[in-house]
Amino acid sequence: MFLTRRFKHCPSCGSQVAYQVPADDNRERATCTGCGAIHYENPLNVVGTLPVWNDQVLLCRRAIEPRHGKWTLPAGFMELGETTAEGAARETDEEAGAQIELQGLYCVHNVVQVGQVHLFYRARLLSPVFNPGPETLEARLFREDEIPWDELAFRTVRETLERFFEDRRRGEGYGLHSADIR
Amino acid sequence: MFLTRRFKHCPSCGSQVAYQVPADDNRERATCTGCGAIHYENPLNVVGTLPVWNDQVLLCRRAIEPRHGKWTLPAGFMELGETTAEGAARETDEEAGAQIELQGLYCVHNVVQVGQVHLFYRARLLSPVFNPGPETLEARLFREDEIPWDELAFRTVRETLERFFEDRRRGEGYGLHSADIR
Repeated sequence: MFLTRRFKHCPSCGSQVAYQVPADDNRERATCTGCGAIHYENPLNVVGTLPVWNDQVLLCRRAIEPRHGKWTLPAGFMELGETTAEGAARETDEEAGAQIELQGLYCVHNVVQVGQVHLFYRARLLSPVFNPGPETLEARLFREDEIPWDELAFRTVRETLERFFEDRRRGEGYGLHSADIR
Repeated sequence: MFLTRRFKHCPSCGSQVAYQVPADDNRERATCTGCGAIHYENPLNVVGTLPVWNDQVLLCRRAIEPRHGKWTLPAGFMELGETTAEGAARETDEEAGAQIELQGLYCVHNVVQVGQVHLFYRARLLSPVFNPGPETLEARLFREDEIPWDELAFRTVRETLERFFEDRRRGEGYGLHSADIR
């Protein structure tokens, strides 16, 4: 579940907060009992890429929790000061050390239970040589029939890979895909 | 600018926080000097619609700051527990009281300076009758030559409207658009 009611104290003044519905709102918000500040909790973006080299795609085996040891596309939380595309490229560099040319936004998947939106860009690998960072045990290329479907870390990764191989077989281009995962 | 360093106290225990780079990270994070918890700050999603009735689009005049009195597409912060599409539909109901059929995701604009991603869906209006909520002074339909270009609230609204009228003139469908606004 997403982390609702995670505020116990006010990040501004340190007083205790109470969850109550502010005037002209319709949801409970963390409201400071001291300074009156209201603190909102909202979904976060995870940004990543689907890097392709000829008929292979790049997956990374996770060296961190959650899903330690499982395979994922390079992705992570979008940071302040960057665009979704810049964040996707940064994560690809940090997790895989892969050289890429970023292509179009390919998937926007909602993961409602954890309060996340996962955005994946297609990317063209410029080299099949990788230099994975500390969050990755191993980065390697997989042909479709080699994908470790039962060892994927996240459902949005599975969804993105399934759509990609379908689109590739169909040969009519790579439009935007969205899925709601609950 | 986006609100970096907005944590002064730990939301968990109320102790003071220090901004420092955690082990195995490369950015300063709000780190509690008491319990050690790390609190992240990330971009937020604004979700909305571009509602269309024949050759007209729906705009709302804002009854709230920022940009009180300016015209906008119905949109607002995505909430926990909903998808991007559900949030866009909710905001359209709350701000305009408009009956719509939601269509495809149309724009994903990054507004880096304020740490926001604006996602707009196209929508088909089912009725030209609106029932604006307290955040809206007025909701009405505009033909292209009536759009109050100099009185629009946000650059992402301008960008979305410009792309829409271009795509409509071209008559080749409504693909996804992205713009980075800095």
